[in-house]
Amino acid sequence: MDYAQIFASAIDRLHAEGRYRVFIDILRNKGNYPNARCFAGHNGPKPITVWCSNDYLAMGQHEAVIAAMEEALHDVGAGSGGTRNIGGNTHYHVDLEAELADLHGKEAALLFTSGYISNEATLSTLGKILPGCIIFSDELNHASMIAGIRTSGCEKQIFRHNDLAHLEELLAAADPEAPKLIAFESVYSMDGDVAPIAAICDLADRYNALTYLDEVHAVGMYGARGGGISERDGVAHRLTIIEGTLGKAFGVMGGYIAADRNIVDVIRSYAPGFIFTTSLSPVLVAGALASVRHLKASSVEREGQQAAAAKLKAIFREAGLPVMASTTHIVPLMVGDPVKAKKISDILLAEYGVYVQPINFPTVPRGTERLRFTPGPSHDEAMMHELASALTEIWDRLEMRMAA
Amino acid sequence: MDYAQIFASAIDRLHAEGRYRVFIDILRNKGNYPNARCFAGHNGPKPITVWCSNDYLAMGQHEAVIAAMEEALHDVGAGSGGTRNIGGNTHYHVDLEAELADLHGKEAALLFTSGYISNEATLSTLGKILPGCIIFSDELNHASMIAGIRTSGCEKQIFRHNDLAHLEELLAAADPEAPKLIAFESVYSMDGDVAPIAAICDLADRYNALTYLDEVHAVGMYGARGGGISERDGVAHRLTIIEGTLGKAFGVMGGYIAADRNIVDVIRSYAPGFIFTTSLSPVLVAGALASVRHLKASSVEREGQQAAAAKLKAIFREAGLPVMASTTHIVPLMVGDPVKAKKISDILLAEYGVYVQPINFPTVPRGTERLRFTPGPSHDEAMMHELASALTEIWDRLEMRMAA
Repeated sequence: MDYAQIFASAIDRLHAEGRYRVFIDILRNKGNYPNARCFAGHNGPKPITVWCSNDYLAMGQHEAVIAAMEEALHDVGAGSGGTRNIGGNTHYHVDLEAELADLHGKEAALLFTSGYISNEATLSTLGKILPGCIIFSDELNHASMIAGIRTSGCEKQIFRHNDLAHLEELLAAADPEAPKLIAFESVYSMDGDVAPIAAICDLADRYNALTYLDEVHAVGMYGARGGGISERDGVAHRLTIIEGTLGKAFGVMGGYIAADRNIVDVIRSYAPGFIFTTSLSPVLVAGALASVRHLKASSVEREGQQAAAAKLKAIFREAGLPVMASTTHIVPLMVGDPVKAKKISDILLAEYGVYVQPINFPTVPRGTERLRFTPGPSHDEAMMHELASALTEIWDRLEMRMAA
Repeated sequence: MDYAQIFASAIDRLHAEGRYRVFIDILRNKGNYPNARCFAGHNGPKPITVWCSNDYLAMGQHEAVIAAMEEALHDVGAGSGGTRNIGGNTHYHVDLEAELADLHGKEAALLFTSGYISNEATLSTLGKILPGCIIFSDELNHASMIAGIRTSGCEKQIFRHNDLAHLEELLAAADPEAPKLIAFESVYSMDGDVAPIAAICDLADRYNALTYLDEVHAVGMYGARGGGISERDGVAHRLTIIEGTLGKAFGVMGGYIAADRNIVDVIRSYAPGFIFTTSLSPVLVAGALASVRHLKASSVEREGQQAAAAKLKAIFREAGLPVMASTTHIVPLMVGDPVKAKKISDILLAEYGVYVQPINFPTVPRGTERLRFTPGPSHDEAMMHELASALTEIWDRLEMRMAA
């Protein structure tokens, strides 16, 4: 048994497929986003423009968020010092859970250290509490949902992406007496399309199924108070569980679920991924609290971001670049090859100071490798035109096809 | 299918067993640890003394840590804005990984959002990369290791706690050609005993097994530079993977592994729990960096904590309280009943302003419910005597047995 050889060949496979990942080493410049410093190469930190952050509204730089974190840092210190049960339940956690429950019109909410673990822990625990449960899962669901469903040990039925007829076919064929759960996302982050939430809730009603909606790319971004697509569509009350993150539009870190009191209590009491982990730092919780409160009252950031995304899509289309059919704030350009996607990204960084990461397998299916732009309120039109020119030049240099 | 009924009865089961958990709502007073404020009850926040924090050395309140976090907050902002691959790889992350690799004498290290996910993601991924691997797991291993081993899909062989003869028996009986991994902890946190690391490494050598050591309750606490029990015992170089946390002695939040470059690269490249999650906030990483660097150079905190633990054990023993046979900084008192453990904890909080959480199933086996004290350098002798008097009074009031 030659362990070193096995590990080395696992790495070699990634190089051979052209999908070995190199993390770009950066620091953002607070107050001057999307400007940042890049530490790659030899000439000290170089200025770059970030085009691929999930801090969609730049709330991670917002004065109210920074001030709240600074206050918590000086009032209570750095970490929580324990699990929620053993010393790590601060007053900030209690307040933020109340705020998130209110955001989604639910009785209760529960914080996790990440969106990943909120999906993993909640889905796996639900499946264990409901013996014989069948989980119906959209084929494009995030890796964390897939991990939770696998750990639940439940039967999994995968329905074609956003395909209501297929979902109904599977529901109708299942044992009417079995517990059922439909797990899906509102905004699919690598394509930018949106689930038909109301119609899925109709099916859930017809077949007596629970619903689990991942809104991580939508909370803070859609709805009058930032409650996500479910708020925008007026269907939040129809969903059993809404899951969200504090690490994207809210600009901080952490994940959560919102649901009725008993379901939240069950997850709180039975989920290993919640119970056995040091709770979120009170500093982060204080920042998230300020961010959620701000975006409940202010729509300026949401509107600025939507305008920027619409503008960038239009500029890309005009330039003949293969922008994908997103209906949201996400602007993906199809490349379809991992080596080329990486090459374009490398040229953009080295020659144009543009930072956009190539998206490859396993984040997206092989053959659909892409660049994914997330313009925010601070990316102005001049920057967008420069970006489109750079991309057009590189597309030409690499002899790639423009859009039809 | 009455879902509400199923959820309600899952909660009822916890009440019936006396192990329904109530989180105590607190805020620590920075600069004045172990003093804190408790928000339970009706008379506004009440002053309490915290006796159960895993911020063992109060580094979460250390000026160097607070200053580093404040600087990062103002230099780059709140959250990282993305996964490590997509915008969330800051220069702080790169520096901290180098610092942790050095701490354990390894080639590389990798950060995770928590210790829980570092165990879960690393063990599950190792098992998938090594087909046919058999994982030998100490029976008292933490829930996060158990979760990772289960997800790996590997055959699991459980050896009796710290029992070398049993471990060797299982290793000898296994297929000599199969890949093997021995997974264990250095300090078992609910009992306070320590693994025979060198002897386990001897067995690993004899049977060509990899080793995985969880040092979460030991990093920062043992060894001349805070490298854990493996540093204290001079065996860090013999372990394949050392796992640690930034959320206990280092006082912040997050987890990590340290190992040779290829193993770290494999986990970095293949583990869903690492790939698909927003990276640690740069504010936390900056704080952890300051904390690790401080504890590499300073032993004052470690020595103060060890002296406090020894003193508290002696005072408990003198008072005739049933202190368990811990050889470390952890001071557990056996109660052996979930209802009584909760009752003692409630009286301590309400009448004495002492906060110590009851530890019940699933954190410890049923019938071994306990109180777990973690005195630090700031818990003085007068506080310890007051605590012992309070406990003696309550032991008497509840007609419980004293130590033999």
